[in-house]
Amino acid sequence: MQDTLDQMFSPKSIALVGIPRGFKSGKVFLMGLLEQGFTGPIYLIHPSSPEIDGFPTYRNLLQIPDPVDMVIILSPRETVFDVLRECAQKQVKAVILYTSGFAELGGKEGRAAENGMRQIALDGGFRILGPNCMGVYSPASHVAPFPGMPKTPGSLGFISQSGSLMNLFVTACSRKDIFFSHAVSYGNGADVGLTDLLAWMGKDEQTRVLCSYCEGVEEPRNLIPALRETAGRKPFIMWKVGLTGAGSRAAASHTGAMTGEGPLWKSLFRQFHVLDVYDIEEMSDLATAFYHLRPPVTTGRVVIVSGPGGPAVSAADAVERNGLTMAALGRGSLDRLKALLPPTGTSWANPVDVGLGASFDLRLYEEALNIILDDPGVDTVLMLGGGATAEMSTAYVHGLIAARENTNKPIIAIAYPGFIQIDQEDLLSPLRKNGIPVYTTPERALRAYARMLDYYRFQGRQG
Amino acid sequence: MQDTLDQMFSPKSIALVGIPRGFKSGKVFLMGLLEQGFTGPIYLIHPSSPEIDGFPTYRNLLQIPDPVDMVIILSPRETVFDVLRECAQKQVKAVILYTSGFAELGGKEGRAAENGMRQIALDGGFRILGPNCMGVYSPASHVAPFPGMPKTPGSLGFISQSGSLMNLFVTACSRKDIFFSHAVSYGNGADVGLTDLLAWMGKDEQTRVLCSYCEGVEEPRNLIPALRETAGRKPFIMWKVGLTGAGSRAAASHTGAMTGEGPLWKSLFRQFHVLDVYDIEEMSDLATAFYHLRPPVTTGRVVIVSGPGGPAVSAADAVERNGLTMAALGRGSLDRLKALLPPTGTSWANPVDVGLGASFDLRLYEEALNIILDDPGVDTVLMLGGGATAEMSTAYVHGLIAARENTNKPIIAIAYPGFIQIDQEDLLSPLRKNGIPVYTTPERALRAYARMLDYYRFQGRQG
Repeated sequence: MQDTLDQMFSPKSIALVGIPRGFKSGKVFLMGLLEQGFTGPIYLIHPSSPEIDGFPTYRNLLQIPDPVDMVIILSPRETVFDVLRECAQKQVKAVILYTSGFAELGGKEGRAAENGMRQIALDGGFRILGPNCMGVYSPASHVAPFPGMPKTPGSLGFISQSGSLMNLFVTACSRKDIFFSHAVSYGNGADVGLTDLLAWMGKDEQTRVLCSYCEGVEEPRNLIPALRETAGRKPFIMWKVGLTGAGSRAAASHTGAMTGEGPLWKSLFRQFHVLDVYDIEEMSDLATAFYHLRPPVTTGRVVIVSGPGGPAVSAADAVERNGLTMAALGRGSLDRLKALLPPTGTSWANPVDVGLGASFDLRLYEEALNIILDDPGVDTVLMLGGGATAEMSTAYVHGLIAARENTNKPIIAIAYPGFIQIDQEDLLSPLRKNGIPVYTTPERALRAYARMLDYYRFQGRQG
Repeated sequence: MQDTLDQMFSPKSIALVGIPRGFKSGKVFLMGLLEQGFTGPIYLIHPSSPEIDGFPTYRNLLQIPDPVDMVIILSPRETVFDVLRECAQKQVKAVILYTSGFAELGGKEGRAAENGMRQIALDGGFRILGPNCMGVYSPASHVAPFPGMPKTPGSLGFISQSGSLMNLFVTACSRKDIFFSHAVSYGNGADVGLTDLLAWMGKDEQTRVLCSYCEGVEEPRNLIPALRETAGRKPFIMWKVGLTGAGSRAAASHTGAMTGEGPLWKSLFRQFHVLDVYDIEEMSDLATAFYHLRPPVTTGRVVIVSGPGGPAVSAADAVERNGLTMAALGRGSLDRLKALLPPTGTSWANPVDVGLGASFDLRLYEEALNIILDDPGVDTVLMLGGGATAEMSTAYVHGLIAARENTNKPIIAIAYPGFIQIDQEDLLSPLRKNGIPVYTTPERALRAYARMLDYYRFQGRQG
């Protein structure tokens, strides 16, 4: 079974059944594969058109002369069972079933049909992802179900019940220099579901951190072995929706999911230290911390270094609210800061307010940061600053990177409008690539950082 | 007194005392005025340099032949009292005191000095903003204390204890098509403080919605008359920091503020329906709702229209979590939606899932939106979608604007990565300019919207 899922994430050949002729939504599968530069053969199956977009077509799977690893089925609902039976005959290894119109419609027929599919797959020795799913994104295997997905492989895994959310999250993360080992949308999960995918991603060596968007599973308790295995091995960030009445009803008509009871889910999160999140931004904030900050830091004595004074006050609130500690700087550090900083408009206690003048004299930021990193009472530094001009902001960024190279202590950067904008990729990307995560506000940074510490502390107690 | 604050926000002439010669932080005041095109005379005062940046200088205020409305003081701390006495002799109306090194240093001397300043102002018939502040941004008067601030006037007011936060928030808002009547940083608030500014902004006709960043006031109870007056008249969004021990200590060394007790502040927020917020993003989210959505809507029956199914499920959760209601569409609307939408991959209950195909066939979004807006059981529509190409996304946006023109019901747009990016200004700006606010996630949109409804309901009970 492990083998079959391997082939789902790195097929050597792919057939697309029911690819549309015009510019319609199903075309994205072909666009994605071509754009990624999928290296194996791609076979298009169409009942009547002899060619599509310059590709010759086959009338059915059995006409393909060579073996086929994976079949992506987009053909109409009434054809699905015939195609699945052809898949069995053709001895394919993996099926991605995009076609919808089964359990999510709410009737008994849909569930019965999904049971039938599962039986065909079991008998035929293959696995099905879906129905009602987008399938697999695996940049190392040059597989993607949408155009526009990044070609760079990384170490974040994503298990998403929703296909569009897979695309949205992968795209959003790539803009933050977070790249993926694999992402997968499993839709109704008639055969392969969260349990299988969680277990597989847990063992996958390319996947260092794991996220999931989940509407529901048939029986949350069945997840326990996979949770124990995987969440014990790598951080598992889970966006579980459908925990309100309104959300639960919406999930039922989206993927036919049984969302389950809030208290049961909450107790699973607690027991296995799943990092549960509330929306895509919180998921992204946590992924940022785990992806860009490598060391398993477990102590949270934070120093805030700031040019603007206001955000530093709110950051100090956020330190305390998130259960972190404002580091007490040693006497020596305080003396060095006092000697460095101008006497007014600054503060050498923590928050270390280097003053607005530091945007014009970057040495103040850099030397303050180095003094603070030297202090053994400090675990982490949050930097809230920037230069007065674009050139000076570039120098500011290089100063942070240089400091990072000489320390094991995490440095977190805040991109605040007026200092560094969150869309100044030329400034922010080098930070992230050098292990300095970037957040839009200190509040979001500190919340994510505190949850990361909490996770590593828990792992320490377990280990 | 009202008159003097008027002149602080619309001076006819300005003198800058202690403007630096090189590219140093104090230069921002001159840069801001020049860039805004301040129309009155600008006088530079410097003790030794006969000219700065091509401007002739005066040795002191008394040498200026004409009257001066406002003086901005940047000169060293030890000169401040002499300059203030000159201000009194010169009969100026308003002083912005940027110079720091008073109460925020924590000693008794600082507080005593601030008492002394207040007395000079009282005797001299002028008001002081500061010390340790950036002063006034008033685009209609062409006054700004930083370069790079927008020249467009608007109707949001902002009272900020921190000067850098004033700049940050104004800049961030302008990127969301939110513009300002006035913004003001009052620093240590030795003379003019939150109470005066709140009362003045409450009466100011250009200010429709009011935000504040506040570290503390000497005695929160003294705010009560101004709160009663202003918060009863216009939405007042308040980011009160320093409510933890760590934040309170940080505020003391930033602006010398006494942050006050959390429970007292909380009871003021409740009593006067102040919209308290936790960080700059929440402040911006609420300002967006109040700024772009004009009608005082008080019922919250929401419909979610979505191409991607996943975000719609989470949005339904957020509707319920924020005390809003998922609107029940009428039988007629459901029949029309059923006739419109493809039978699979969609859902015509609420959330109305128009399917991923709608990105390729925008008519599905547009007609679904019009059917829903027609339904008398619907108050608000949240739109989660976009086109498959840049051109189609433009058409999608125009569809929303056309629908908005034919309804009084709020439409809220979500810019989700992969559909419409939050930085696609060419797409988002027309939405906002046509009264359709844009949020990054449904969760943030619904939270802000729910708080707005709550505010208008409260006002209705009061009125």
